[in-house]
Amino acid sequence: MTTPILVEIAILLAECPVSKLISLKDLEFLLYRVFNAEQLTRLPHFADHDRTTFDGILTTAERIAETYFAPHNSKADEHEPQFDGKTVTTIPEVKEAWQHFAKAGLLNARHAYADGGMQLPSLIHMAANAFFMAANPSTAGYPFLTSAAANVIHAFGSDEQKATFLPPMFDGRFAGTMALTEPDVGSSLGDLTTRAVPAADGTYRIKGQKMYISGGDQDITENIVHLVLARIEGAEKGVKGISLFIVPKFITNPDGTLAQRNDVQLAGLLHKMGYRGTTSTVLSFGEQDNCVGYLIGDAGRGLMYMFKMMNEARIGVGLGAAMIGYRGYLESLDYARNRPQGRSPAEKDPHSKPLNIVEHADVKRMLLAQKSYVEGSLALCLLAARLVDEQEAGTDAQQREDSGMLLDLITPVVKSFPSFYGPRANDLAIQVLGGAGYTREYPVEQCYRDNRLNPIHEGTHGIQSLDLLGRKLWQHNGKGLKLLMARIHATLASASQKPELAALVGEYQAQLKTVQETTLLLGGALQKGQVTEALANSALYLDMMGKTIIGWLWLEMADKALDAFANSPVQEEQQFLAGKCQAAQYFIRWELPEVQHQARLLQSFDRTCLDMQADWF
Amino acid sequence: MTTPILVEIAILLAECPVSKLISLKDLEFLLYRVFNAEQLTRLPHFADHDRTTFDGILTTAERIAETYFAPHNSKADEHEPQFDGKTVTTIPEVKEAWQHFAKAGLLNARHAYADGGMQLPSLIHMAANAFFMAANPSTAGYPFLTSAAANVIHAFGSDEQKATFLPPMFDGRFAGTMALTEPDVGSSLGDLTTRAVPAADGTYRIKGQKMYISGGDQDITENIVHLVLARIEGAEKGVKGISLFIVPKFITNPDGTLAQRNDVQLAGLLHKMGYRGTTSTVLSFGEQDNCVGYLIGDAGRGLMYMFKMMNEARIGVGLGAAMIGYRGYLESLDYARNRPQGRSPAEKDPHSKPLNIVEHADVKRMLLAQKSYVEGSLALCLLAARLVDEQEAGTDAQQREDSGMLLDLITPVVKSFPSFYGPRANDLAIQVLGGAGYTREYPVEQCYRDNRLNPIHEGTHGIQSLDLLGRKLWQHNGKGLKLLMARIHATLASASQKPELAALVGEYQAQLKTVQETTLLLGGALQKGQVTEALANSALYLDMMGKTIIGWLWLEMADKALDAFANSPVQEEQQFLAGKCQAAQYFIRWELPEVQHQARLLQSFDRTCLDMQADWF
Repeated sequence: MTTPILVEIAILLAECPVSKLISLKDLEFLLYRVFNAEQLTRLPHFADHDRTTFDGILTTAERIAETYFAPHNSKADEHEPQFDGKTVTTIPEVKEAWQHFAKAGLLNARHAYADGGMQLPSLIHMAANAFFMAANPSTAGYPFLTSAAANVIHAFGSDEQKATFLPPMFDGRFAGTMALTEPDVGSSLGDLTTRAVPAADGTYRIKGQKMYISGGDQDITENIVHLVLARIEGAEKGVKGISLFIVPKFITNPDGTLAQRNDVQLAGLLHKMGYRGTTSTVLSFGEQDNCVGYLIGDAGRGLMYMFKMMNEARIGVGLGAAMIGYRGYLESLDYARNRPQGRSPAEKDPHSKPLNIVEHADVKRMLLAQKSYVEGSLALCLLAARLVDEQEAGTDAQQREDSGMLLDLITPVVKSFPSFYGPRANDLAIQVLGGAGYTREYPVEQCYRDNRLNPIHEGTHGIQSLDLLGRKLWQHNGKGLKLLMARIHATLASASQKPELAALVGEYQAQLKTVQETTLLLGGALQKGQVTEALANSALYLDMMGKTIIGWLWLEMADKALDAFANSPVQEEQQFLAGKCQAAQYFIRWELPEVQHQARLLQSFDRTCLDMQADWF
Repeated sequence: MTTPILVEIAILLAECPVSKLISLKDLEFLLYRVFNAEQLTRLPHFADHDRTTFDGILTTAERIAETYFAPHNSKADEHEPQFDGKTVTTIPEVKEAWQHFAKAGLLNARHAYADGGMQLPSLIHMAANAFFMAANPSTAGYPFLTSAAANVIHAFGSDEQKATFLPPMFDGRFAGTMALTEPDVGSSLGDLTTRAVPAADGTYRIKGQKMYISGGDQDITENIVHLVLARIEGAEKGVKGISLFIVPKFITNPDGTLAQRNDVQLAGLLHKMGYRGTTSTVLSFGEQDNCVGYLIGDAGRGLMYMFKMMNEARIGVGLGAAMIGYRGYLESLDYARNRPQGRSPAEKDPHSKPLNIVEHADVKRMLLAQKSYVEGSLALCLLAARLVDEQEAGTDAQQREDSGMLLDLITPVVKSFPSFYGPRANDLAIQVLGGAGYTREYPVEQCYRDNRLNPIHEGTHGIQSLDLLGRKLWQHNGKGLKLLMARIHATLASASQKPELAALVGEYQAQLKTVQETTLLLGGALQKGQVTEALANSALYLDMMGKTIIGWLWLEMADKALDAFANSPVQEEQQFLAGKCQAAQYFIRWELPEVQHQARLLQSFDRTCLDMQADWF
């Protein structure tokens, strides 16, 4: 006789020969040494927590991610959702994973005890989410979008809206989406044309089409709550005329039970290169002129509300990109440690034993680059989460505001650095595996495909660069930037006390100086109204600032690693800490100096791209 | 039920005209202005040709590529070859395309009239091949491998082998493959274990497994001619013990008719991320101890012979990478010119008309980068082809030798620069299309997947970098490098006469100086036996040399564009030439200066990667 649980384990073992999803040593180091997670428990809001509850959550997340998410990551890619013109079918494992996620209370882990939540710090929540992103980013998409949508309703919805929609979203009966993009309107949201007509009963009738809506239809939940941006009839043009609406797939009674189907139709699925497990949809609202929507908050403030969700989603994209990169890194490291091939350049004896490829300098380079990108990116996302906690639960009003401003400043970088360098890491992971890496028999090619979405959705790379250089830097008289510099200087002060870091501190300071000069120059130009010239090369600036922040975080990690080194008698621990220092050296010596060249182009307001004419291509 | 939007998408896709595969203006410029194709007709071997015959070949290639290759590029990706345990099935369009390719005489276009060929210059042949690589790299893989295999037999086979195998390979009845890699042996060919046992009749019995063999089985041709590297029983270890064998799928009678099946079995297909239309196979030779192989040339010289094919294949990989990049560039350019979205940063009026995205500075950057990578890469491949012509058909013995040495030197760059920057171009093409680019409804995601193979096969990036820095640079007392520098200085001399190029020439010279210093320093270290240290960062050097050569080619193109400008009264022609100059400026100003940072790491023999320990990751 075979008991169900044994069968389950057998299937698990057969389907899941995955490397660890995250290095637990690294996660622990980041949470407890770099970001002082335990310090958060001194805040009243988190007072019931301690390291034990944090670790409990992380262990639970890891277990669910490994048991219910990782095993079908490849299967969901191979068997993408199907639409027969009426309903969407996803493989059953997705629903099962969703249910386990919901049952563990992870959909509202950060909400107050009063709302059935755990009052979990964002820092720990982010770390827990990291397991799911590493295990199966497509299936993880459903709960993460739902959490983000619920947070908008929680923050801006009426009491009735909250009472109706939040409980079923928190317990996993309803999922959520964000519906912004239209076939003709992507980055330029001010041009959107979906209309909302007021009805006699205080609700609205929505009409229009939305495109690239992730999770816009599925067979996982009873109901789907779309948050839809639309323009109330007669509203002004541009972003100020946009309002936000709740549009459920099924009309929902106040007690959460379902009434009739709303007039939202799935027009079709889009077929993506990767991230295939998450449906990407074209939705038609109001084809029969009977699509009911409920206005959230005030008319005309829709984009502002949506940006609450959007900013959270942007950080989530950063985390996803970091963790897909991380997954690829661990896979390629595992391969490199076990694949014998070739000899050192100095070895001429063909009878000598081949080395495992991890011993080749060029493979070390590819692994170090990956390590520096993905561990740096994870650190960045955890920093963002730490700032959310300080902003939301801090006891000092000024500090709360400061943390919010710093978070605002770095959000474009949290979104874009991992989205750019995560795929680069996956590219290197394929290269480490060579021919094997290019086949679907190994997991790294899926990582590469999945991760390519991240520089696109929730605001492309170009949009992030304009947001950073055109807006975020100068908000509140540049307060965010000052706060960032203060934190960087604190790290430099600590690190410069350590002789082992003297050279790195010097190199970092030299680059930082250039970045500061460049920033001032660009700011001056913007003040003088030279908007076109100052923003023309904004992508360079985004990368420059990303490298500056990640370089800082690596210095911080090296500093903390050296602190820990003295108290770590275990060899394995010492090796881990030595690796942190080496990766810091790699990033600061190999990657960061590229800002010099970027600075030259930016400081000279280089017009090469700006002057290119469409007819010259 | 078919909803309107789905119908719309279907119509869109059906009507979607394939962009031109290559800019004919660009190809003409490269062939006739930069590489002086007509000059080749002065050589006796090409004396029967003139521009009319060249253009005739190119037009034929374009027509066949557009008619028989391009239309099933996406279909072959979606319906990859199937193996039922007995036979492989490919979609019928592949065979049809193959037959048209063969019927046009393109399989032996470069061979002598006496061999039924056209005595076509390699330069024109490369340009013709470019159409197929742009149209459908997977299907193009079959004829290109066959040509390369035929060339090895032509160069090193016995008269009998040539008489038996070449006619059916040239007329398309037989295909060819190269079988080097084994499950445990990829980059390190000296370790291969496939054995060859002499038989009484002078043939050999082959036994072993080969992996990642492209075109190793298919249902397109009557027979397949495998060129197999194996070790004759008792041969020494390492590369000197390797011999090369012809192993046909069907034993072939001297008159080209087929006898019995040889003991070569398809063990399985590998499933790739892209390039799916070309089978990638695991082959078992001699499972029944009855696999007949015919030794080519002398025992122990197999690798040397194979390198004839390999070098040709490496240039072919460069061309494929360039053209997949080129295809993506044209697709994204077409999209950018027709997609309205957003306004200039200085425009605040939401009522103003959106711009086509080609007008945004950051989109221009992404297009310029692509243009500089792919047109530069195509120029590089055509340079290689020009050198082949000079080497093979030149009338001056010294010049023939010189051209051969220069070709040898740059081959690692011809293979690797397009393979690295082609995928980067495809990455940018996706980014220009945004969400659309990430879906399989548009062609750029396939380009991105297809092109990712190129930095792996026919010698990985790392292998190319060791080949360049560890060997090619120093062959014949550095003669190849001196020849390269002489050509670069000739371009600089001409360009420096033009005031419009003065600034670019200055910038290029400054970078070149650094590259030369770095090369000398590394050479000195190698001479002193510091092999490990000098080669540790070879990947940086490969990229540095790639940028140097491509920067030179861009300067050459700008120089020739300015020459042409005066005689081009047509506006469209002037715009094209202005674009060439702007792309040269982009590459030399934006990309080339990265060599400075690379030089600093190389010149300091930076040990960051070398010192990293496997246990520290």
